Amino acid sequence: MKNSLLSRFAPRETKFFPMFKQLAQFSASAAALLAESLACKTEDEWSAYYKRIKDIERQGDKMANDIIHELSKTFLTPFDREDIHSLTSSLDDVTDRINSSAKRVAIYAPKSVSDSGRELASLIKQAADCICRAMDELENFGNRHKQLLDICTELHDIENKADDVYEMFIHQLFKEESDCIELVKIKEIMHELERTTDAAEHVGKVVRSLIVKYA
Amino acid sequence: MKNSLLSRFAPRETKFFPMFKQLAQFSASAAALLAESLACKTEDEWSAYYKRIKDIERQGDKMANDIIHELSKTFLTPFDREDIHSLTSSLDDVTDRINSSAKRVAIYAPKSVSDSGRELASLIKQAADCICRAMDELENFGNRHKQLLDICTELHDIENKADDVYEMFIHQLFKEESDCIELVKIKEIMHELERTTDAAEHVGKVVRSLIVKYA
Amino acid sequence: MKNSLLSRFAPRETKFFPMFKQLAQFSASAAALLAESLACKTEDEWSAYYKRIKDIERQGDKMANDIIHELSKTFLTPFDREDIHSLTSSLDDVTDRINSSAKRVAIYAPKSVSDSGRELASLIKQAADCICRAMDELENFGNRHKQLLDICTELHDIENKADDVYEMFIHQLFKEESDCIELVKIKEIMHELERTTDAAEHVGKVVRSLIVKYA
Repeated sequence: MKNSLLSRFAPRETKFFPMFKQLAQFSASAAALLAESLACKTEDEWSAYYKRIKDIERQGDKMANDIIHELSKTFLTPFDREDIHSLTSSLDDVTDRINSSAKRVAIYAPKSVSDSGRELASLIKQAADCICRAMDELENFGNRHKQLLDICTELHDIENKADDVYEMFIHQLFKEESDCIELVKIKEIMHELERTTDAAEHVGKVVRSLIVKYA
Repeated sequence: MKNSLLSRFAPRETKFFPMFKQLAQFSASAAALLAESLACKTEDEWSAYYKRIKDIERQGDKMANDIIHELSKTFLTPFDREDIHSLTSSLDDVTDRINSSAKRVAIYAPKSVSDSGRELASLIKQAADCICRAMDELENFGNRHKQLLDICTELHDIENKADDVYEMFIHQLFKEESDCIELVKIKEIMHELERTTDAAEHVGKVVRSLIVKYA
Repeated sequence: MKNSLLSRFAPRETKFFPMFKQLAQFSASAAALLAESLACKTEDEWSAYYKRIKDIERQGDKMANDIIHELSKTFLTPFDREDIHSLTSSLDDVTDRINSSAKRVAIYAPKSVSDSGRELASLIKQAADCICRAMDELENFGNRHKQLLDICTELHDIENKADDVYEMFIHQLFKEESDCIELVKIKEIMHELERTTDAAEHVGKVVRSLIVKYA
């Protein structure tokens, strides 16, 4: 549903922007903890990090609900309702995937998370930081198209890099790992890390569609 | 899209409520069969239960389509269209996940489904019964907020319990099971059971958002 | 949101139809390559096919974005906006799943993809061809209900066949395969192939709901 011509000139509710920033901040905090966690080597450390990440994930969940609640009470929204929905759920997804990655590390407790695992975690952290920058720019949307598009491209490039790391690693893993149980653990962890970068890129796609629509 | 002021006072189509109840009833029947199935120990029994659950899942699918069809012909709906969509698909998802859990038991045919597997099935049954009660209350929505919110909390608590059962069990499984093929079977079955409780909690989230929006 | 009475008699934008056809065409091309790929036996061949399929998947992605972009600029659409959204994303999903299947074959590099794997790939090809025919009929929607419904039934039947092939094969695999790593590879590949036929059937469900709504 396009905003009507009239409503384009009426004052719009701006309280959504700090909420988007907060959601992005949650994913960045969770991503930083995930990267720290993958530098650790013991089950106890992994469990402790998972608990902290899970806490953040719940706060993110609550904030996403608050946004939807706010949306139902607000008449003039800065973007169309379904766009606020998409942005909210795409931001929330990133934190969900980070949580799910940390959970897998904690409950599978692999012998090692591998350098490629740490590389993916570092790419996830970069992507979450990009998303924070994007949410900072979003409030001044009107004259920040170029900056926002650059961030979307960055998210796309990060996802491509993550894809390459993942594919190369899994290919090797299935050739070289002879311990099937370790292989299953690592495959599941790496898969979730890779899906996290997909989720981050998806935020970029939503932002890009906002630019196209409202530019 | 919020219902317009005018339409808030016009008579609304009520035929959706029995359809929601019916969808919930399908998930409860499927959940009861799943719990029975996990008390069995032979492939033949598992296959027979899977067939019965699959039948129910197809009826649920048909009913969900009927609701969407009804929606397209109805002018004054009891909730906004996208809310009816969300509720319908969240209810349908529960039965889908139960079906998918039963399918995994039938086609993987593990040596044992474990006490934790049976515990998850029993939590799924509890959750499906909660959902039935919620759909009973929904028709008198206006003065049943408290009861509905209590049920949402119950669904949330069940999901938390299921999460703990799942995480503890998988952690042990990956430590103790040395037969990799059995490990893969059990992990996949347990994962789907756990996702079923997520799907049930999701219905609770949709109901909670209805309360917030229309209260 | 139903199209208003007025808009039902106004000329509608028709440029969406060639775009739907193009999306369907992408899935058919990718499906043909996937079937060829599964007739191969070496890693190098699988990698080469995966690269070609990935290229198509990206073109599909771009086209899906173009449709959403077009949608945001178009006032009188041939179907309601959310229906164009659903159709676009369901068509895009098919190509995504084909890509993901090809990726699994390339990175897991199993000893053999099995006759059942080739059977699923052939069913996927049939389904993608059905979808192309459906998109051809869609433009003359008004007097092609019968033909469209027949195609939907065909997609449903293909999915059922694929389900049977998948279930029977996995059941046998878990009984007979003693090499756990090969088992994991094959299970993951077969699962993705089966989900691809689900995605194709989902297009049929979207088309069926269009018929019900606009008939």
